[in-house]
Amino acid sequence: MKPINVGLLGIGTVGGGTATVLKRNAEEISRRAGRAIQLKMVADLNTERAREVAGEGVEVTNDAFNVVNSPDIDIVVELIGGTGIAKELVLKAIESGKHVVTANKKLLAEYGNEIFAAAHKKGVMVAFEAAVAGGIPIIKSLREGLTANRIEWIAGIINGTSNFILTEMREKGAAFADVLAEAQRLGYAEADPTFDIEGHDAAHKLTIMSAIAFGIPVQFPKAYLEGISRLTAEDISYAEELGYRIKLLGITKRKPGGIELRVHPTLIPEQRLIANVNGVMNAVLVKGDAVGQTMYYGAGAGAEPTASAVVADLVDVTRLLTADPHHRVPHLAFQPNQMSDLQILPIDEIETCYYLRLKALDKKGVLADVTRILADTDISIDAMMQKEPKPGEELVDVIILTHLAVEKNINAAIAKIEALSTINGSVTRIRLETLDK
Amino acid sequence: MKPINVGLLGIGTVGGGTATVLKRNAEEISRRAGRAIQLKMVADLNTERAREVAGEGVEVTNDAFNVVNSPDIDIVVELIGGTGIAKELVLKAIESGKHVVTANKKLLAEYGNEIFAAAHKKGVMVAFEAAVAGGIPIIKSLREGLTANRIEWIAGIINGTSNFILTEMREKGAAFADVLAEAQRLGYAEADPTFDIEGHDAAHKLTIMSAIAFGIPVQFPKAYLEGISRLTAEDISYAEELGYRIKLLGITKRKPGGIELRVHPTLIPEQRLIANVNGVMNAVLVKGDAVGQTMYYGAGAGAEPTASAVVADLVDVTRLLTADPHHRVPHLAFQPNQMSDLQILPIDEIETCYYLRLKALDKKGVLADVTRILADTDISIDAMMQKEPKPGEELVDVIILTHLAVEKNINAAIAKIEALSTINGSVTRIRLETLDK
Repeated sequence: MKPINVGLLGIGTVGGGTATVLKRNAEEISRRAGRAIQLKMVADLNTERAREVAGEGVEVTNDAFNVVNSPDIDIVVELIGGTGIAKELVLKAIESGKHVVTANKKLLAEYGNEIFAAAHKKGVMVAFEAAVAGGIPIIKSLREGLTANRIEWIAGIINGTSNFILTEMREKGAAFADVLAEAQRLGYAEADPTFDIEGHDAAHKLTIMSAIAFGIPVQFPKAYLEGISRLTAEDISYAEELGYRIKLLGITKRKPGGIELRVHPTLIPEQRLIANVNGVMNAVLVKGDAVGQTMYYGAGAGAEPTASAVVADLVDVTRLLTADPHHRVPHLAFQPNQMSDLQILPIDEIETCYYLRLKALDKKGVLADVTRILADTDISIDAMMQKEPKPGEELVDVIILTHLAVEKNINAAIAKIEALSTINGSVTRIRLETLDK
Repeated sequence: MKPINVGLLGIGTVGGGTATVLKRNAEEISRRAGRAIQLKMVADLNTERAREVAGEGVEVTNDAFNVVNSPDIDIVVELIGGTGIAKELVLKAIESGKHVVTANKKLLAEYGNEIFAAAHKKGVMVAFEAAVAGGIPIIKSLREGLTANRIEWIAGIINGTSNFILTEMREKGAAFADVLAEAQRLGYAEADPTFDIEGHDAAHKLTIMSAIAFGIPVQFPKAYLEGISRLTAEDISYAEELGYRIKLLGITKRKPGGIELRVHPTLIPEQRLIANVNGVMNAVLVKGDAVGQTMYYGAGAGAEPTASAVVADLVDVTRLLTADPHHRVPHLAFQPNQMSDLQILPIDEIETCYYLRLKALDKKGVLADVTRILADTDISIDAMMQKEPKPGEELVDVIILTHLAVEKNINAAIAKIEALSTINGSVTRIRLETLDK
């Protein structure tokens, strides 16, 4: 059978990995796909480098529209990133009746509804395994592997930079800023790390997973984001004393009133497998009503791990090229006319457990005041730990773990606690997920 | 669109779970699949119970051939198990042009080549996600999610009963026989537990994974099996002192000379995520050349977890009903005319690390003799631990961990060590996998 011709937009890290994998594993890939999948065109502003990386026999251009418009190209792989020219190119490719493979989480989390609608109308596929958790086949598992299930929740470590920083902070007892600097030196964090450490990247990926898990449109603007930059080595150490690890989790849950969609630092019991996912590795824990908990673990970034997902999508698209579009797996897992209108809950309405740390005067009655405020706000306490005062200090750290509570109640209680004359400064609040059912 | 009609053969644990999930999640499933998937017929010898479990509107028969021959049935789900009547029914269903979904690992590991050839000839699908690791979508991940990769090896905890026993032995320091009795009481082990604890079940699953990972025919008779019944609490405890956990692993590796295919107790460094998979849970670690290590974790058995895989296959088959058979995912992941002729290596030829435990006289020169034998047989030592003699005993336990060695060399060395007059009884040998690359 004639080979499938691929046009690559952007040959940076992942693009280079894709070219390498397609070449190195060409035989293995065509033995699986039933036909060869070959890189035919590459568009990159740096044509010299592109020529070098793509190798012989690949047409190189500095104008991506040449690829998108080429009649020789069957599948366009978009690896430019962002929502500017990448969006235009993807829509143009769809309009030209080409299938698209993309690793662009930002584009899909922000404009996925528009893009998938265009693709549906045109009867082409937009595949995006590489957009979430690198080489881990989590999109395939959610869209196809767990179709029997009513998905209840997903909790994922889906940003390698943040997980590396939190792992180092715990193992070395180091401060956030020091570890960030080390991560930057090692190339695990960008010069401007905001996108990773403040939760944007994780929220993009979570938004996509939430949509395919629950059959809702992508709604990135409604995601709640809280990063790791304010975490202290002290809280990580207290959490550990209590048997917990702190991870930046992306969490999405189906609740009677709607869908929770939130990224924030989270305490997890240390005996959970996902609490032991360290360094730059990613893992996604999925709870389905039939299967129970399943977890998917692997490298969430990097040239070849991400290329692994890109090429798997190329094989999938190749296999389904001639299939009736109505029988293909729907872009967002559910048939487009069967989407749910469940709303994303505001962060005030979410329900979880909490870790609270307060600095209290070491006096009688202080804890009684605090616990009364919590009881009055309908918050019950799971554990409490009072530390010895440090030499020369009259303030002691009090750590409280709560049972399930609604966020607005916690905030109200915190405001009252902070108003106590025996409490110094603000209360540190970190969410806690038991992940046990 | 008209519903897909399913005929179920056998409505025991998994069959009951399948009926339950199809009913409970009917709406969710049809919103994904684009049409309803309904249970139309059930065959079971116990028709009364079958009627009760299947519910109203489902035709019940005590003759499975009625289902296989019914013109109303689109997909046959075989949950009878074994290689007798189940094989006959599956082949008959294929011959009648029906698609088959099965959880029967034994049937596929032993007769898969014949069954897949028949299905290929007839242009029907035989789907078997439920045959390996219950609800974990590992077959889909290997056949579709990792198609970009040259798979290097797979290591899996794929028998829940054995993993439960090993977990309890470690946590309680208990003997094998005691924990087995407890597992039987809890329903985690059969009255005759041989199939689980001696590695047969794991080897069936491993044989299937090995075939789809490397593109070779299923070759169960060539798998090496060693169970957990001879493991002692002592070895589990020594392993732990050295930083290792002992798990029953199914391991298949691509080597220059062929494929390793083996199930046996294995020491794993405790910091590996898979070493921390406890109780009845399963996990499969896959190493691909592009993606690196990925791991898949979840319940490997049970009514609804296994039903989750059965129903996911039903959705897959439903989606691909009208697809050109040549474009469907090949049964064994590679196109039937593109299979590899790599041979399964005999156990003597495998290469791994080893844990050796010997009882030695507490005398000068004993260890020198042992280490000289190892050096002469080209085996290098990674770690050695000599225990204090127990009160009143003159023998001491010596534990040796080796670097990579070929099994026949280890066996030759062990024979020489056992022949030493200073060594008492036989040497305990447990394989060790570092799983680090």
